[in-house]
Amino acid sequence: MTRLTRDDCAALDAADPLADKRRDFALPDGIIYLDGNSLGALPKATPARLAAVISDEWGADLITSWNKHGWIDLPRRLGDKIARLVGAGSGEVVVADSTTINLFKVLAAALKLKPGRRVILSERDNFPTDLYIAQGLIGLLGQGHELRLVASDALSASLDENTAALMLSHVNYRTGALHDMAALTAAAHQRGALALWDLAHSAGVLAVDLNAADADFAVGCGYKFLNGGPGAPAFVFVATRHQEHFVQPLSGWLGHAEPFAFEAAYRPASGIGRYVCGTPPILSMAALETGLDLALSVESALLRAKSMALTDLFIRAVEQECAGFGLSLLSPREPMQRGSQASFTHAQGYPVMQALIARGVIGDFRAPDILRFGFAPLYLRFVDAWDAAQALRAVLETRAWERPEYHRRAAVT
Amino acid sequence: MTRLTRDDCAALDAADPLADKRRDFALPDGIIYLDGNSLGALPKATPARLAAVISDEWGADLITSWNKHGWIDLPRRLGDKIARLVGAGSGEVVVADSTTINLFKVLAAALKLKPGRRVILSERDNFPTDLYIAQGLIGLLGQGHELRLVASDALSASLDENTAALMLSHVNYRTGALHDMAALTAAAHQRGALALWDLAHSAGVLAVDLNAADADFAVGCGYKFLNGGPGAPAFVFVATRHQEHFVQPLSGWLGHAEPFAFEAAYRPASGIGRYVCGTPPILSMAALETGLDLALSVESALLRAKSMALTDLFIRAVEQECAGFGLSLLSPREPMQRGSQASFTHAQGYPVMQALIARGVIGDFRAPDILRFGFAPLYLRFVDAWDAAQALRAVLETRAWERPEYHRRAAVT
Repeated sequence: MTRLTRDDCAALDAADPLADKRRDFALPDGIIYLDGNSLGALPKATPARLAAVISDEWGADLITSWNKHGWIDLPRRLGDKIARLVGAGSGEVVVADSTTINLFKVLAAALKLKPGRRVILSERDNFPTDLYIAQGLIGLLGQGHELRLVASDALSASLDENTAALMLSHVNYRTGALHDMAALTAAAHQRGALALWDLAHSAGVLAVDLNAADADFAVGCGYKFLNGGPGAPAFVFVATRHQEHFVQPLSGWLGHAEPFAFEAAYRPASGIGRYVCGTPPILSMAALETGLDLALSVESALLRAKSMALTDLFIRAVEQECAGFGLSLLSPREPMQRGSQASFTHAQGYPVMQALIARGVIGDFRAPDILRFGFAPLYLRFVDAWDAAQALRAVLETRAWERPEYHRRAAVT
Repeated sequence: MTRLTRDDCAALDAADPLADKRRDFALPDGIIYLDGNSLGALPKATPARLAAVISDEWGADLITSWNKHGWIDLPRRLGDKIARLVGAGSGEVVVADSTTINLFKVLAAALKLKPGRRVILSERDNFPTDLYIAQGLIGLLGQGHELRLVASDALSASLDENTAALMLSHVNYRTGALHDMAALTAAAHQRGALALWDLAHSAGVLAVDLNAADADFAVGCGYKFLNGGPGAPAFVFVATRHQEHFVQPLSGWLGHAEPFAFEAAYRPASGIGRYVCGTPPILSMAALETGLDLALSVESALLRAKSMALTDLFIRAVEQECAGFGLSLLSPREPMQRGSQASFTHAQGYPVMQALIARGVIGDFRAPDILRFGFAPLYLRFVDAWDAAQALRAVLETRAWERPEYHRRAAVT
């Protein structure tokens, strides 16, 4: 392979059909932001949109905004927008609560729909909140369910007649490894189990196709590649075939068939609406919509192609420029098997990342030794990947990570 | 009683120690807003605060804001502020999720703490979402629990050795009737039951004292009298004595003892922190804090005194000015038995309210025939109460409510 140069990267940027999209984001000067898989960047349209919702809707029209400005429809309206990003149909996705809360709803559904079965099967290093909420549900039910955790390559073989649900994150949050959603869903179905997917690291960056994969349930996050803002509301997908067969237990008034009839008995809304619970956080919802509209403004195939190209280029640049400094690629080398991130291990992972952040390259650290770099194709350039690799080399070459301040742990790592 | 005049009301405003607070709210011209118990008004400081959080925190500092701007502490920091408003101690309240979701957490706790008991006792016309979530939890558990609904005056007598929890709204959302929190909590405890209070219509307007009443659990809403914005995050109170004895089932990663250790097994945070679930909606949280700071800027005794005076004056004005038009007072006449609202019934309640809104007096309608008027003492004047009564008289006198457009039902009523 010929040696990569910065000019090669600049040429890729010049030919990038998504290059203009960067201008739609308010990125701080002097920062290369490789953490859009933890918190997406700020769309430039968001401040004005929020200012309007706050002053012109809440402030001026007060309670009448629920009708006048369609606040009451936001969960379904935004859900339909997300549906277009994840291969779902209209009426199959709704925006509500957090990813964790939504997972509780669909896990409860899955266990109820498979009454004779006692196992939720997942991956040992699935994102912890997914495992925690499964543990919470199982403990609450007290019916002898079990969360069985196996290694990634043992998932298919571990499905059996006692498996109620296969619960997986589409993209592993640490390694970036991508599951084959269609194959694993088919394997689950073959064993009579349901398949639940967490799209936290997929929605808005991969060409997800839930219905092509025949997925049963999915949840996902609004604040990563959907650029909805910190703690943006999450979403939940329920395949149409399951919607009328279960009433999810977090039965709040806005999931009622007629919330404003104020009946004493819960009657679920038809369809996906019953997955709404309480009153949605409108300000956070409005910010999410701006992020969604940006994701919808481009073809998802282009996003995926650029995502693969960016992570490929970054891996190549790091391996070329940082050879001999103790880094090992943790993410799959094959781009089709990888989400929109590249992770490396390093024995001094934590201080190396702090030193890198101090130089203006923001990635994140994941215990025990992982440097994680997320690549948001809507706003990153190929030269950013190159420059980040150079900054990483400088940190390692100068042993900048040895400075004591980079070893102090922050509350959020 | 002497006849009330507008001058009397103006004199009350001139003597009102809270009169200046109105200037802290962005109230639209020509509107008398009597629906702050449904959605509080916009504090003038909120737009600038949100603009700063969006652009200077999220936009400029991106993921580092979780540490740099203390986002990670918001649930507990805001919880401690709310604690001061509701008679709780530091570390007894946390801001998270919605009122409904929080009620699920503490109902699950109550049932677990009272394992031999099978009844959740509540009021027949409690706010429906509270009843719905109890139904959802009971259905999920499948252990033969029962939600027993009785009339308000039968609550004490209905407590027995099978009652696990007495679950009540402090203020009835329709009538405005106020429960005696201390007496009912004591009655519950005497029967060995726990007491759960929904403070949706109390926090920020009544002088609530959870610990003086020896309450076990409470939940409440950020978007009514706390002026936190549409769908603002809710709060949950857990008395210190119960905190370490139960792990609530909506066990998300931010309720973990060490979220960033990314362990596979859930280990609850000590104290109230375990009642946090997923990632909090930071934009909505920031808006809530501005509302909380306003509520904390005045003495709650003054708020309560003005609230009683406002509703008293409104009732007097309506009964004086609108006599003979078919209105009946639904709220308790005794101010100590009433929250910060006054409700009247009228056979044409729905169109009457629509006609009133068209004249710039915003209250709301609650089925089947209730005109509901909320009085937020932070931003309402005594002349507003007078003028609202005059507008109501005009609607009734001219039979403006007969116009067909006032009979069409909106999505949100």
